[in-house]
Amino acid sequence: MSNLLIRNVRIMDGDAADIRIRDGVIADIAPELEPGDAETVDGGGHIAIPALVDAHTHLDKSLLGLPWYKNDVGGGSLIGMIENERRIKRALDYDAHVQSMRHALRTVAYGGTMIRSHVDIDTEGGLRALEGVQQTAEKLAQVVEIETVAFPQSGLMIREGTAELMDRALEMGAHLVGGLDPCAVDRDPKGHLDTIFALAEKHGKGIDIHLHEGGEMGLFSMDMILERTEALDMKGMVTISHAFCLGMPDFRRVDAMLGRLAALDVAIMTTAPSSSPAPLVRELDARGIRIGAGNDGFQDTWGPYGNGDMLERAKVVGQRNNLRMDSEVKRALDICTGGGAVAMGKPRFALETGAPGDLVLVSGDTVVQSVVSHAPRKLVVKAGRVVARDGKTLIDAP
Amino acid sequence: MSNLLIRNVRIMDGDAADIRIRDGVIADIAPELEPGDAETVDGGGHIAIPALVDAHTHLDKSLLGLPWYKNDVGGGSLIGMIENERRIKRALDYDAHVQSMRHALRTVAYGGTMIRSHVDIDTEGGLRALEGVQQTAEKLAQVVEIETVAFPQSGLMIREGTAELMDRALEMGAHLVGGLDPCAVDRDPKGHLDTIFALAEKHGKGIDIHLHEGGEMGLFSMDMILERTEALDMKGMVTISHAFCLGMPDFRRVDAMLGRLAALDVAIMTTAPSSSPAPLVRELDARGIRIGAGNDGFQDTWGPYGNGDMLERAKVVGQRNNLRMDSEVKRALDICTGGGAVAMGKPRFALETGAPGDLVLVSGDTVVQSVVSHAPRKLVVKAGRVVARDGKTLIDAP
Ligand SMILES: [Zn+2]
Ligand SMILES: [Zn+2]
Repeated sequence: MSNLLIRNVRIMDGDAADIRIRDGVIADIAPELEPGDAETVDGGGHIAIPALVDAHTHLDKSLLGLPWYKNDVGGGSLIGMIENERRIKRALDYDAHVQSMRHALRTVAYGGTMIRSHVDIDTEGGLRALEGVQQTAEKLAQVVEIETVAFPQSGLMIREGTAELMDRALEMGAHLVGGLDPCAVDRDPKGHLDTIFALAEKHGKGIDIHLHEGGEMGLFSMDMILERTEALDMKGMVTISHAFCLGMPDFRRVDAMLGRLAALDVAIMTTAPSSSPAPLVRELDARGIRIGAGNDGFQDTWGPYGNGDMLERAKVVGQRNNLRMDSEVKRALDICTGGGAVAMGKPRFALETGAPGDLVLVSGDTVVQSVVSHAPRKLVVKAGRVVARDGKTLIDAP
Repeated sequence: MSNLLIRNVRIMDGDAADIRIRDGVIADIAPELEPGDAETVDGGGHIAIPALVDAHTHLDKSLLGLPWYKNDVGGGSLIGMIENERRIKRALDYDAHVQSMRHALRTVAYGGTMIRSHVDIDTEGGLRALEGVQQTAEKLAQVVEIETVAFPQSGLMIREGTAELMDRALEMGAHLVGGLDPCAVDRDPKGHLDTIFALAEKHGKGIDIHLHEGGEMGLFSMDMILERTEALDMKGMVTISHAFCLGMPDFRRVDAMLGRLAALDVAIMTTAPSSSPAPLVRELDARGIRIGAGNDGFQDTWGPYGNGDMLERAKVVGQRNNLRMDSEVKRALDICTGGGAVAMGKPRFALETGAPGDLVLVSGDTVVQSVVSHAPRKLVVKAGRVVARDGKTLIDAP
C-alpha cells in the first residue's frame, strides 16, 4: 500500500507542514516529519487543499478529443436536446469507454479524485454506456473513484423496456438508481417514481434523480419523492440533482420544503447555473442540508461550456450565491471537496489525520485566490498515490 | 505610423489569410500578402478575432499586486461596501495611478485594447483617482484606449461638494458623466438625475449611470432617466450600466421599457451577473439595443472574483443567457469585442478592411472553443502595434 510523505506545504492558509499518507489515509500532519522509507515529494510551499469531488457529471456524454461539434440546436426544448444527442452519438459510433477515459482523466488533471457519473440507460444504447464507464472505473481505480447512476435519460415510462434495462444495470453494479423530471419528461410522476423507488428497494440502493422542473411543478415532484423516501425508510439515501424549484422566489414555500428535505437527510447536487433559479447555498446551509456540486458533463451535445475543473466550479458556486467574504468562498470550495464527498455519502475529504489521503496542491497566495485564479494544479494525490503533476495526469488519455 | 503584416492566421473560423494593418487601420485581408517594408509577425495558424473591449470597469479600485485583502464584509449592504472601500483605501494610502496601470495592463495581456473606466469622485479622495487614471491613460495611449467616467461612488446629493468636484472632473477631461442608484443611494432621484443631466448638458458629454435598483424601483429610475434623455435631446448619448431591473420576470413591463430604450438608442452595459436578475441578450437583441459587457473591477474590496479577461467574460455572458448554439456563443463574444465598442459609441472592432487595427490571436480549434477554454492569448495588437505575446504585455506593470 501507499506510503507517501509530502514535504513543505501550507495546510489551507495555515502554517507550513509535511503530510504523511499511509495505506491511503492521512497518518500525520506536522512540520519536519521523518521520511523513513516513504516516497517523498517536495510540495514547494504550495497550498494543500482536500481533493476535488465532481458529484454530478455524465462520463458517457463528452465529445473530448473528437472533432468540434457545431451546436445548432440550442437549449429550447429538453426533449429536442435528448433526441439530438442520441442522433449525434449514433452518427459518431460513440465509444463510451474511450470518452469516459478522456473525461475522467481531464477531471483528475484538475484535482478531482471522486466522481459520481450518471450513465444513460435506454432502449437504443442498452447497457453499452454503462459497460464502457465501468471499464473506465476499473482501469482508473487507483486514480479516481467513480460511482455510477443508472440514468433513464430518454424517459422511463415513455420508452417501454427501459425499466428492465435499469434493473439489469443495477444487477451489473450501477451504484444508484437515477431518474428524470417525472412530470415534464415522463408525463407520469406516479409511474416514474413508483418504478425507480421499487428498483431502489429491490436492489437496496440509493436514488439520485435529475429534477429540472421549476416552481410549483418541481415542488410537486419533490413532494412525491419525499413521500416515497419516508414510506420506504430511505432517510439519507436520496439525492436530488439540480432542484431548480428550490430557487423559486416564494421563500416561504421553499423554506418549508427545505425543512422536509433536512428531516429526511436528502442531499442536493447543483451546478450553480447562472441562467435559471437554483438552490441557494446560504438557505440550504441554514437547514444543514448536504450539498455537492458538479460540472454536469462538458463539451457535449448539450452545450460547449464546462471543462471538468471543480476548483473553477467553486468560483461559479461562489458567484452564483454572491459569496464575497473569504469564509464564504471557502464554503463554496468545501462544497466542491469534502462537502461533496459527504453529499455522496462518502467519508469527508479533509486535511486531518484519519481522512482519506486525497489532496491537491494549488497555486495562489491564499486559498481564495487559488479558487479565483484556478491555475493548473501542482500535484494531485489519490489515496496516497501521485496521479497528476502540473496540470497533467501521469496516465495518458486514449 | 504602424505598418504590420500578420501572416498565416484563420479569420474567425474561416480560411487562412494574412492581415495587413497600416496607420492603425486594417488595410488588407487576403492570403499571401507581400510584406514590402512592413514589420512581419507569424500568426502560426491561430484564430484571429477582433480585440476585446471592457466597457465597464473601475481602474481605480483593484488591489492587484498588493497583499491579499481578506474580505469579511460580504455583499449585504451597498452603503456598507462603499464605506468599507473608502476605509481600506485610506489605510493602504491607495495609489490610483500604480493600481490602474496594473489593472489596465492585465486587461491588455488578455487581449483588451479598449476600456471604459468609472473613476470615483468624492469629497474624500477629491480628483486624485481621476488624475491617477488619466496618467495611466496617457502612458498607455499606444497600448489601450481608456475612456473615463466621473463616478460619484459615495453619493452625489448626500455628500455636499461632490457635484462641484464632478464639474471639475469633466473640465479636466473625464469623458462621461457617471451616476449611481438615484433612489437607493441618493434617496433623491430628481435631485440626482437633474444634477448629472445638467453636468452633461453643460459639458456636452454623454452619461453612463450605474443602476443596480431592481424591479419597479429600477424601472421608475429608468423612466426618469429616459424622460431627461428625451427632453435634452440626448438620443444615443446615454448608457445604463447593470440595469438589473430589466431582468425582472414581468416581461410585459420589461418589453415596454426595452421599446423605449431602443427608441432613444440607450446602450446597456452588463457583467452578466449570476446572482441577480439582469438584462437578457436575446430580449435586448430583439429590440436592436446596443450591449456592451465589462468585468466591473476585479480583486478589489467589493469581491474576489474577476480577472480582466473579456474572453472569459464572453463565456459568462453565454452561460448567463443560456446561449448554447455556436452562433449564439459568437454573439456573446461580439458583445465583448466589436459590439462593446459600438455600445461605447466607438467604431466597431471587426476583421475587415477599414476597421481599427485591434485584434487578438487566440488558441482553440474554433472560435467557440477559444471562448470556452480562454487559454492565454498568443498575440494582442493595438492599432497595428504588438502589445502582448503569450499572455504577457510587452510593457511591465509597476
Ligand atoms: Zn446531469
Ligand atoms: Zn461598476
